[in-house]
Amino acid sequence: MQDGNGLDHLAGERAMAQFDLQAMKVYLAGGQREYEISTKMAQLVANDPVFSKEDRVRLARKDLYKNSLRKAGHAWKTILEKGLSEVEGLKLRHFVDEPTYTDLHWGMFIPAIKGQGTEEQQHKWLPLAYKMAIIGCYAQTELGHGSNVQGLETTATFDPTTDEFIMHSPTVTSTKWWPGGLGKASTHALVYARLITDKKDHGIHAFIAPIRSLEDHTPLPNVTVGDIGVKFGNGGYNTMDNGFLRFDHVRIPRENMLMRLATVTKDGKYVRSNKPRQLGYGAMVFVRQGIVIDASIYLSRAVTIAVRYSAVRRQFGNKDEPGELQVIQYRTQQSRLFPLLATAYAYRAVGFWMKSLYADVMKRLNDNDFSTLPEVHACTAGLKSITTSVTADGIEECRKLCGGHGFLCASGLPELYAAYVPACTYEGDNTILLLQVARFLLKTLSQVSKVRPVGTAAYLGNIKQLSTQNCKVSQGHDWLNTSVLLEAFEARSARQAAAVALRLAKGSGSEAEFQENTPELVESARAHCQLILVSKFIEQLQTGTPEGIRKQLEVLCYTYAFSQLIDNAGDFLATGYVTGNQIALAKEELKHMFDKIRPNAVALVDAFDHTDDYLGSALGRYDGDVYTHLYKGAFKESLNDTVVVDGYEEYLKPVLTQNLWAPHSKL
Amino acid sequence: MQDGNGLDHLAGERAMAQFDLQAMKVYLAGGQREYEISTKMAQLVANDPVFSKEDRVRLARKDLYKNSLRKAGHAWKTILEKGLSEVEGLKLRHFVDEPTYTDLHWGMFIPAIKGQGTEEQQHKWLPLAYKMAIIGCYAQTELGHGSNVQGLETTATFDPTTDEFIMHSPTVTSTKWWPGGLGKASTHALVYARLITDKKDHGIHAFIAPIRSLEDHTPLPNVTVGDIGVKFGNGGYNTMDNGFLRFDHVRIPRENMLMRLATVTKDGKYVRSNKPRQLGYGAMVFVRQGIVIDASIYLSRAVTIAVRYSAVRRQFGNKDEPGELQVIQYRTQQSRLFPLLATAYAYRAVGFWMKSLYADVMKRLNDNDFSTLPEVHACTAGLKSITTSVTADGIEECRKLCGGHGFLCASGLPELYAAYVPACTYEGDNTILLLQVARFLLKTLSQVSKVRPVGTAAYLGNIKQLSTQNCKVSQGHDWLNTSVLLEAFEARSARQAAAVALRLAKGSGSEAEFQENTPELVESARAHCQLILVSKFIEQLQTGTPEGIRKQLEVLCYTYAFSQLIDNAGDFLATGYVTGNQIALAKEELKHMFDKIRPNAVALVDAFDHTDDYLGSALGRYDGDVYTHLYKGAFKESLNDTVVVDGYEEYLKPVLTQNLWAPHSKL
Ligand SMILES: Cc1cc2nc3c(=O)[nH]c(=O)nc-3n(C[C@H](O)[C@H](O)[C@H](O)COP(=O)(O)OP(=O)(O)OC[C@H]3O[C@@H](n4cnc5c(N)ncnc54)[C@H](O)[C@@H]3O)c2cc1C
Ligand SMILES: Cc1cc2nc3c(=O)[nH]c(=O)nc-3n(C[C@H](O)[C@H](O)[C@H](O)COP(=O)(O)OP(=O)(O)OC[C@H]3O[C@@H](n4cnc5c(N)ncnc54)[C@H](O)[C@@H]3O)c2cc1C
Repeated sequence: MQDGNGLDHLAGERAMAQFDLQAMKVYLAGGQREYEISTKMAQLVANDPVFSKEDRVRLARKDLYKNSLRKAGHAWKTILEKGLSEVEGLKLRHFVDEPTYTDLHWGMFIPAIKGQGTEEQQHKWLPLAYKMAIIGCYAQTELGHGSNVQGLETTATFDPTTDEFIMHSPTVTSTKWWPGGLGKASTHALVYARLITDKKDHGIHAFIAPIRSLEDHTPLPNVTVGDIGVKFGNGGYNTMDNGFLRFDHVRIPRENMLMRLATVTKDGKYVRSNKPRQLGYGAMVFVRQGIVIDASIYLSRAVTIAVRYSAVRRQFGNKDEPGELQVIQYRTQQSRLFPLLATAYAYRAVGFWMKSLYADVMKRLNDNDFSTLPEVHACTAGLKSITTSVTADGIEECRKLCGGHGFLCASGLPELYAAYVPACTYEGDNTILLLQVARFLLKTLSQVSKVRPVGTAAYLGNIKQLSTQNCKVSQGHDWLNTSVLLEAFEARSARQAAAVALRLAKGSGSEAEFQENTPELVESARAHCQLILVSKFIEQLQTGTPEGIRKQLEVLCYTYAFSQLIDNAGDFLATGYVTGNQIALAKEELKHMFDKIRPNAVALVDAFDHTDDYLGSALGRYDGDVYTHLYKGAFKESLNDTVVVDGYEEYLKPVLTQNLWAPHSKL
Repeated sequence: MQDGNGLDHLAGERAMAQFDLQAMKVYLAGGQREYEISTKMAQLVANDPVFSKEDRVRLARKDLYKNSLRKAGHAWKTILEKGLSEVEGLKLRHFVDEPTYTDLHWGMFIPAIKGQGTEEQQHKWLPLAYKMAIIGCYAQTELGHGSNVQGLETTATFDPTTDEFIMHSPTVTSTKWWPGGLGKASTHALVYARLITDKKDHGIHAFIAPIRSLEDHTPLPNVTVGDIGVKFGNGGYNTMDNGFLRFDHVRIPRENMLMRLATVTKDGKYVRSNKPRQLGYGAMVFVRQGIVIDASIYLSRAVTIAVRYSAVRRQFGNKDEPGELQVIQYRTQQSRLFPLLATAYAYRAVGFWMKSLYADVMKRLNDNDFSTLPEVHACTAGLKSITTSVTADGIEECRKLCGGHGFLCASGLPELYAAYVPACTYEGDNTILLLQVARFLLKTLSQVSKVRPVGTAAYLGNIKQLSTQNCKVSQGHDWLNTSVLLEAFEARSARQAAAVALRLAKGSGSEAEFQENTPELVESARAHCQLILVSKFIEQLQTGTPEGIRKQLEVLCYTYAFSQLIDNAGDFLATGYVTGNQIALAKEELKHMFDKIRPNAVALVDAFDHTDDYLGSALGRYDGDVYTHLYKGAFKESLNDTVVVDGYEEYLKPVLTQNLWAPHSKL
């Protein structure tokens, strides 16, 4: 997708490509319809000056935030005016590409009401939310309590005399802290609080609390609310008003407790409903599928920038050729960059698979079949953890691969990192999620003789064989076999899990022993998830990939699998499944893959189809015209408004003229 | 060093410490005198409101920069007023803790004149520079050329008719781009340019070019100069005016070429001097020693914050104890955090060793003994590369270890990262530096039968034995032996180097074959450097560490060595030196080390002696009073200046009232 208007400096690169670019674009978009919607929405945003990201890194927080309100309002207006569908609207907001209060309103507030509200409550709140007559946020985390939701301190005490809950923040640590959209935009908060009826603590429940006047937007009486302050990066997440919130005995009607799973009656009785709690799992799978696709998108943006720039950038020569070499020619550059390119493709494929997983879960939930849920829960938790961590690190790696210029915001990379990296923390801290996976693996193994493991854990049913049979690769090309690769990842994961399970089984089963082994447990969870990623990438390729792109996808799939194997060689070797020599052979095969990627590299990132507007990067421009745009860009810097800088008279001249003590010096 | 004034929430932690805190502080400072200077300068800065960092993340670029000029001027004034020594002045600027133009003036401009100027030139320029009557920067990098200095395009063409050089920027890519202090502050630039006399190109030489008027600071005629724009992070490196510079046939006197190593005579003859070029190596070792110490300091700041906060932060419970557990109790937290603590100590020790290396080099240079230079060059290049990469990643890891709150600038960590991470790129891209180490290793190995390797490469003389004898550890405590550890790191490094050398030896010795093997070469360079780090940490401990801290340092040393061993297990295993079982034993020993660190953790970071002012972190406060300070901090956010946010009328009200199309809406 070309926004430039001059020469294409990368035309030579593009001419080398050996696959059907258009087919790849459609594949990556997830289908023809999705491709068309994406293209349309991307252009809509790119062509609308209100959505420009130009100044983002140069605005002070107030202006940045105000401009983000402007964009969010304009996006909403565009959606209504053009009568966009829900999918189109979502895409449009995606391409606007900055965190804002509507993310939480649509992504957390509304789904929570849908999931936890009774039909009556949905009927009351959803129409208001759908037309944005109220703006909601999701207020769970507190200053002193995050991961451990059961530790939240905010109280909702029922007062039967008035049929109200009294919302209260008893301590500093009970202050709600972090909710996006809370700080300045929301009129309502979905508050998680400790439900107390008749002095009895019923644990954490959800409440809808009005927090700002619908008349004039002032905070309601006894509500203290505001923004928690500046976060990592220039623009980054600073377009979002992550907020704090304190209640000083604020009363809300009893009906504002979301009552699908439990009710408080007028006379203060607490009654659990008989609705299965598992129903919420569907939403969770949906959200995590989105996270994995997002990981692919973010990583692909960074990779697009780094690949294009590496094809433009030249350093050092070689006796055989005139001029300097493109840095993409260097093996070290390839060995850091191409695996990330392959990873972006892998996560896309796995995201597609998760879509089908979601459909499967929804069907089963409908049929009251909860049998696969533990496996699905572990699998999606693990994939969230791995893909977000790898993507965050991958963006930074791409930035470093761009040398000095990557450090400029004009490269687009610092912003991308700052906006993405909290994904490692929210929706579940990545370490804690892996510990959940580990618990699932232990449980599965402990029952393996009785219960046949399902889905992504099915291989554990095969543990005996996987534990004894070693890798048979004796020549490089033996590795070019997906079953050989799959078995390697299965054996490694099964062995790591079995080893730590065995150690735990020898003990008393105490929590302290579990704790003691958590580093190994986390490693084994990671191994399990890496297997899922490799296997699902392979699986996706084997099911009807169009001819014109199959070969490239295979190369990327091998690249991904080999680089995972090599990066984790310590694990593979320690389990005894492979030898050092087999790893060395895989390294050679990986280099052959690099040779196959090299001529296609630029086209493979073109296939992600990011507009120049969306990338926002002078280094990643489609036309490769990097240097003129970096240079032009500098003239927008505010410090260049005057040739002599503001501060010269006060702070530089006195230094230069040794007049530091003169009365006119205001130092 | 306590700045707080209330309760010490970490008193319990401190009471557990088992070592002599004061002795550790002195050790880490590098001696009693250094300790006293550091303490004095840190307090001087902390107590001076001009140096406050409070608002840094909230200022728009212009204000941020102006305030940084103010601080730099004030620091200079303080130095002069108080008659501070050079060492004291350096420390003072260190504690002011923001990148600014004086860094380049003192750190690059002046040393370059000293190193490359004739005595006459030094006599002319240095007095001006010392009193800051001129401000200089170091202008090497161009828009299109960085790492490959020989590719620079700026020309300095000698015109014998006027006895001048004509400085010229012939292309966009020849624009000087990045030099710190160039954008807005400098009056002079040390410019690297292609020297041309009589149409002959003599390659890259250094010139002093005046760029701004000493009268009114306006750019001189035909000089285009400015700031290159916003960089990663809020404050971060944005206090620095990294600049661009173009010359349009600007004339400077012939004497402005730095002529220590080569001269251009009045009639345009180019004459090399007979001064040994190696003399510059001393300065390089000095700079890199500083980089390693800096790595330790930066990492220790992040670790201080993460350790203290991990002792304050509580999540989840355990049946055996009431309340939630401190997250520092969790093994996963320890396994990510304590190795970084040990690394900060390791780098300090290695930095001290490099000081003695510097002294040795200077002595040898004086005696015209250049024999150790290749080894010293490789060693210091590698240490720069490894320590900066590990430190940058380590800061981010510490940030993630703080969960959500780490993402707030109030944690101090985002700023720390943004200001530090370019160290991976400047003073030599880290990958390119490792390739230099690799070339040295190859050369050393190729000559090993004839030339005895020296210094940090001496172990390669022992390569036969290291290649055949495997690790003898059979029980966990066998690892608790520094010679066993040293041999492991030596064997692994020697074997990796030998393996790649062997493969290259089989080939034709072409550059293409070298290229093909660069990924393995980089790995072997890394192995060599990790050995140096482990061995020098051990060596430093064995030479007169005070009794009261020896045990703790030993624990940290083992922690460091074991975690290096485990993180690189793939390499150790692949070389066949260790077995999976031996690695597993090391993992157990590492956990024992964690148990020994745990009660000392807070005291071990206290020993770094960072003031609250210097840390600038609500999470890392000495008194552990995290939550009240996070909460208070939020009220300084500009968005909280009004309860109803600026933008409500224009952009929120129309959304909430479905009045998006009403004429008063300015969307
Ligand atoms: C940008 C951003 C947006 C957010 N938006 C929202 C929002 O809209 N609404 C909302 O309610 N919240 C929001 N949050 C908060 C977020 O959900 C929490 O920060 C997140 O859940 C992590 O919890 P924590 O901060 O308490 O981390 P902690 O749990 O305190 O983590 C600190 C450290 O302790 C470790 N740790 C904790 N428990 C254990 C354990 N049992 N075992 C081993 N290690 C452990 C962690 O691994 C981590 O290293 C947001 C956060 C951010 C950064
Ligand atoms: C904050 C900051 C401050 C700076 N201050 C100054 C200053 O004061 N004065 C000054 O002159 N400059 C300064 N610089 C510039 C800095 O010195 C260069 O950015 C640095 O030397 C890296 O060079 P580069 O940007 O050309 O990277 P490149 O060399 O273009 O690197 C891009 C990629 O190519 C790879 N690559 C390049 N060559 C090879 C090879 N032969 N083999 C394998 N891989 C290769 C690199 O590993 C990297 O991944 C500064 C830069 C920054 C970020």
